Amino acid sequence: MSKEINAVYIGRKRTMDYCLVVVTIFNKGENQCTIRARGRSISTAVDVAEITKRKYLSVIEVSDVKIGSEVLEGDHGPKTVSTIDITLKRKSDK
Amino acid sequence: MSKEINAVYIGRKRTMDYCLVVVTIFNKGENQCTIRARGRSISTAVDVAEITKRKYLSVIEVSDVKIGSEVLEGDHGPKTVSTIDITLKRKSDK
Repeated sequence: MSKEINAVYIGRKRTMDYCLVVVTIFNKGENQCTIRARGRSISTAVDVAEITKRKYLSVIEVSDVKIGSEVLEGDHGPKTVSTIDITLKRKSDK
Repeated sequence: MSKEINAVYIGRKRTMDYCLVVVTIFNKGENQCTIRARGRSISTAVDVAEITKRKYLSVIEVSDVKIGSEVLEGDHGPKTVSTIDITLKRKSDK
């Protein structure tokens, strides 16, 4: 199984597009996937995690949520934005 | 010290208004505070936690972040929204 972080970066596409990406990652046999977002996309990241878990993949769970800040170069100088990393994991077999 | 959860609910006010609420809670001597938000306010909740920590209160840290879903009664029937709970704690003395 791949040890790479399967990162899904949330941008301006529709929420369901990102849910499909996450579903595809787990259906390929991966056991973990990290949803990453900055600024206003943070709410969408939480939606993607929750909707995927609830509607499409009952075999996954949220294993970790991290928040932080990042400095971006904007048109008017550096700008600090908030970030979120949501790690989803396949539930261990019982 | 109070054992109650000092919850700050994020709504439509400005980000800085909520930062001030958090600062006030810790300045009153509390050791913990939880920032709660739903839907689009989730990004603001992360901003409040990060800005308060970075700019106003270096003595606090994010101790836990939880995401979840909640069913709300809307005008067009029940609607599921995502939620976030960010717990801030005073750093333990070294």
